Amino acid sequence: MNSYKAPLRDIRFALFDVIGADRLYARLGIETASRDLVDAVLEEAARFTETVLAPLNAAGDEHGCGFDPASGEVRTPPGFRDAYAQYVEAGWAGLTAPEAMGGQALPESLGAAVKEMIDAACLSWGNYPLLSHGATELLKQYGEDWQKEAFLRPIVEGRWTGTMCLTEPHCGSDLGLLKTKAEPQADGSYTVTGTKIFITGGEHDLADNIVHLVLARLPDAPPGTKGISLFIVPKFKVGRDGRAGERNAVRCGSIEHKMGIHGSVTCVMNFDGAQGWLIGQPNKGLNAMFTMMNTARLAVGIQGLALADRAWQNALAYSRERLQGRAAGGPRYPDKPADPLIVHPDIRRMLLTCKALVEGGRMLALHAATQVDIAERSQDREERERAEALLGFLTPITKGMLTEWGNECAYHALQCFGGHGYIREWGMEQLARDARITTIYEGTTGIQALDLLGRKTLQQQAAGLQLFLGMVREFCKENSENAALAEFVLPLAEAARQWGELTMELGQKASASGEELGAAAVDYLFYSGYVALAYWWARAVAAAEAGDHPAGFKAAKRETARFYFGRLLPRTQAHAAAIRSGAGNLMDLEPGLFDS
Amino acid sequence: MNSYKAPLRDIRFALFDVIGADRLYARLGIETASRDLVDAVLEEAARFTETVLAPLNAAGDEHGCGFDPASGEVRTPPGFRDAYAQYVEAGWAGLTAPEAMGGQALPESLGAAVKEMIDAACLSWGNYPLLSHGATELLKQYGEDWQKEAFLRPIVEGRWTGTMCLTEPHCGSDLGLLKTKAEPQADGSYTVTGTKIFITGGEHDLADNIVHLVLARLPDAPPGTKGISLFIVPKFKVGRDGRAGERNAVRCGSIEHKMGIHGSVTCVMNFDGAQGWLIGQPNKGLNAMFTMMNTARLAVGIQGLALADRAWQNALAYSRERLQGRAAGGPRYPDKPADPLIVHPDIRRMLLTCKALVEGGRMLALHAATQVDIAERSQDREERERAEALLGFLTPITKGMLTEWGNECAYHALQCFGGHGYIREWGMEQLARDARITTIYEGTTGIQALDLLGRKTLQQQAAGLQLFLGMVREFCKENSENAALAEFVLPLAEAARQWGELTMELGQKASASGEELGAAAVDYLFYSGYVALAYWWARAVAAAEAGDHPAGFKAAKRETARFYFGRLLPRTQAHAAAIRSGAGNLMDLEPGLFDS
Repeated sequence: MNSYKAPLRDIRFALFDVIGADRLYARLGIETASRDLVDAVLEEAARFTETVLAPLNAAGDEHGCGFDPASGEVRTPPGFRDAYAQYVEAGWAGLTAPEAMGGQALPESLGAAVKEMIDAACLSWGNYPLLSHGATELLKQYGEDWQKEAFLRPIVEGRWTGTMCLTEPHCGSDLGLLKTKAEPQADGSYTVTGTKIFITGGEHDLADNIVHLVLARLPDAPPGTKGISLFIVPKFKVGRDGRAGERNAVRCGSIEHKMGIHGSVTCVMNFDGAQGWLIGQPNKGLNAMFTMMNTARLAVGIQGLALADRAWQNALAYSRERLQGRAAGGPRYPDKPADPLIVHPDIRRMLLTCKALVEGGRMLALHAATQVDIAERSQDREERERAEALLGFLTPITKGMLTEWGNECAYHALQCFGGHGYIREWGMEQLARDARITTIYEGTTGIQALDLLGRKTLQQQAAGLQLFLGMVREFCKENSENAALAEFVLPLAEAARQWGELTMELGQKASASGEELGAAAVDYLFYSGYVALAYWWARAVAAAEAGDHPAGFKAAKRETARFYFGRLLPRTQAHAAAIRSGAGNLMDLEPGLFDS
Repeated sequence: MNSYKAPLRDIRFALFDVIGADRLYARLGIETASRDLVDAVLEEAARFTETVLAPLNAAGDEHGCGFDPASGEVRTPPGFRDAYAQYVEAGWAGLTAPEAMGGQALPESLGAAVKEMIDAACLSWGNYPLLSHGATELLKQYGEDWQKEAFLRPIVEGRWTGTMCLTEPHCGSDLGLLKTKAEPQADGSYTVTGTKIFITGGEHDLADNIVHLVLARLPDAPPGTKGISLFIVPKFKVGRDGRAGERNAVRCGSIEHKMGIHGSVTCVMNFDGAQGWLIGQPNKGLNAMFTMMNTARLAVGIQGLALADRAWQNALAYSRERLQGRAAGGPRYPDKPADPLIVHPDIRRMLLTCKALVEGGRMLALHAATQVDIAERSQDREERERAEALLGFLTPITKGMLTEWGNECAYHALQCFGGHGYIREWGMEQLARDARITTIYEGTTGIQALDLLGRKTLQQQAAGLQLFLGMVREFCKENSENAALAEFVLPLAEAARQWGELTMELGQKASASGEELGAAAVDYLFYSGYVALAYWWARAVAAAEAGDHPAGFKAAKRETARFYFGRLLPRTQAHAAAIRSGAGNLMDLEPGLFDS
């Protein structure tokens, strides 16, 4: 009952009309990424996701993954294996991977658009390639040559998949506590021993081998986060010759029963003296893992966007079909027993909230992904550094806000269905359950907020913020005489001004007390997200007006922007007030008195 | 892993210290409701819910209800039947029911406090008695004498249960579309034919008979909502002698598979010429049903409160135990490997949001329930009318906001658990799934909002609002010289002033265009909820200061109020801005252009 149609028109609008990705690709010299080829990739991705993946979504939820305690093996839901084979056959696994490893070296921003379609079609399935993509980035950057040949090439070919093994039973966000140990061996390898939990794709039946990227401590490692190293631990042992041999001493001990993403297996992984290879420098494992985590964070942000899009597509279709009540101004369809839901203002409020957050979030995410392309490919070092700073700033906003908005949109979209939204057969409740993980894994919203306000802003003299504010100011200046945009440019300029002001205030407060940063962080993240979206919506109106689009399309962009500025942007004022209220109202109550 | 402890201290504080229910009961002459007896009832309810119901919650979710298509019979989850027998044996079924029918005639506000505990312990189980309670109110008010004897008495005794049969496949919120037919018979009964869906407790194995209260149309009924009558249709036929006889032609056709509340069965009910009895006047069935619906709406509001309370209790316990990270100002527990979660400002933000909404929501709900007591029992007609107006105004706020807050609190509480919150064994995800229905059934949040702003405010010259604002003004005046309360009284007075102003503005706009009402309604509901809660939090601080409480308790109330005023009340500004932005940004986009 729950369907998916890839939003090709809006993806193209965001990528080309608003962001200008085609011009960027040309400037970066990505010759394969011609407009024609990019279009063809998008269309083929739409076909694959709509016809192969989307039909797996409900069954994947219903069946979940099977686990055999005797063998430690995992069986993915019906159809997952076949879809993965088609994915590999069509070359999707190597879409953005280096040509030297057999990849197609297409832009990451194109990969992000493809990823949105994959996740909207079947998020649970999408988690398997997601982690391969992260492992690719990590191996590309930190792997020795033999490691790239031995591990990266089969991942790029899709024959093997990757995992990230960070969390342990007693440590999630606080990785400094981790206990898994690695002992050096005479042949240059290490034996890895410990238990990792919440390992997505830790065991499955889609590929021939699984490459675990495992955080562990060397014998002489200092305590805390400065004593963590990173190891490659394959399911089947791999020597320097790249050949996979006998079974390694790593095994899935059990799988989790979760609220959602039932088709995406979540494993307890037991490493029992498993053979592993150090990747990167000793005790610098967290730095290397951050490469993978940043990639994964953008990807999880896109998951939030994807689920929001699927939820709202279905809510829109239902709201057009379901007849219930009459329009306030009198029957709109007097020949029918009632008017469709979409005549009601509050249904429109929910639908437009989704539309504004989905289409706005898409511009935010795709623009962030273009910064990966610039950071990796620009010939100009300063431009690369600017792109990295901007990407670092936009990653927690994209991850944090697109996943929070994903949950909000799933909520509104389910609500449009009334009681039917709560019934499994309509598929809306699955989207809400699936969305709920996205604000948790790869760093909770609270962790994203600390990253944004602490590491990416206050510790870096707000370099990323200044770059983004520079874009805002430039846009506002360019359009200062544009009467058609004045209704957006003026409030955007004001919101951006306040953004800078709040940041300054927080910088001063945080230097006086460390608690002020943590007390303001999540509200600052939300504030930032809403202002960033205001910028993208203003640009969307400008791009729609400037482009060769039907009048209806232009009207839809303008009306949605009006809705956004009128009804969602004011949320910034609640967040600004919360930020300015200070840490005292959070910190003064003794822990023992919370349940008084 | 998920536990429940009845919040007796805070229930007593709300009921006695803040609301003064004991003085009210004495004034209303409810002699049985002495402070001692009320205390004893609360304690016994705590024991029953903590020890009998709470252990059923996880298993009820896991097992769900069984349905036998051959017999049409439903099997409730393990333990539900036994718990119901204990409930009946202890006399809970008749707690607030009339003495003439075998009830104890205790106040509805005490019943509301008991209900909170039942729902927090096991919401799915609580749905069976909930509908009996609604049926009791309806039969009490509209039943003929023989109907009371025949149907009400066994419900009060708990031997039978009730249902509300409103929704049909093609009509939920829009009851004017309903098609179920009732044909008069020679013996004064009717044959009822039609299909009802989403019938909570439509079939089960807890009681000997089930009394369906069914909306249907008489043969000569006018179309729309003015042609709807109400019928009593028991599972086993009941004649005027009150004896249950042969099986009636009503049968459960299937049960729904839902996101949550798996232990609460949701039935498709087929009426196939079933024997029924008219209750109330022909074609006035909706008026009668509103009695039941208003009772049920308050009850569903309390469900939201209950789930929020259980969720936050568990989040608090976890946040005190789970060690993760260090406090910003340096280790708080240097001898442990890390500090507990509760040292982190953002964890506190989530916990305090729950605490403020739960304890605030409790005062709001219990106060609304006292208006039922006044409306039913006061000797003074004017006082009864005032109570009814205030109750009518507070019912959509209680239902709408406590369920929205219930979802919000379940969200934050799950988030405190990180990845563990998403795993079934911790029970947090069940609370989130269960909570999701509460903003839908008994009228969605959008329907509550239209009821509040349209029917209860603009159509009644804001009578209910004026009564509530009168309470606010009186409190502010009484405390205008109280320096200890100034930090709350001043912003409360300002918020109340703006509430009146917004209402006036909306009255003017809505008279010009019907769409303005619908466009503002949900934001107006939220605005109202936050200001109402500000009033209760200010009163809580005043009551804590005035009462004989430990210093820690007083501090907790004051700090939570500070948190509320500093970080949650400012949400009103986002809602006020959305309200004032007008209907245009919702209504101007053509339905066909939403997916442009």
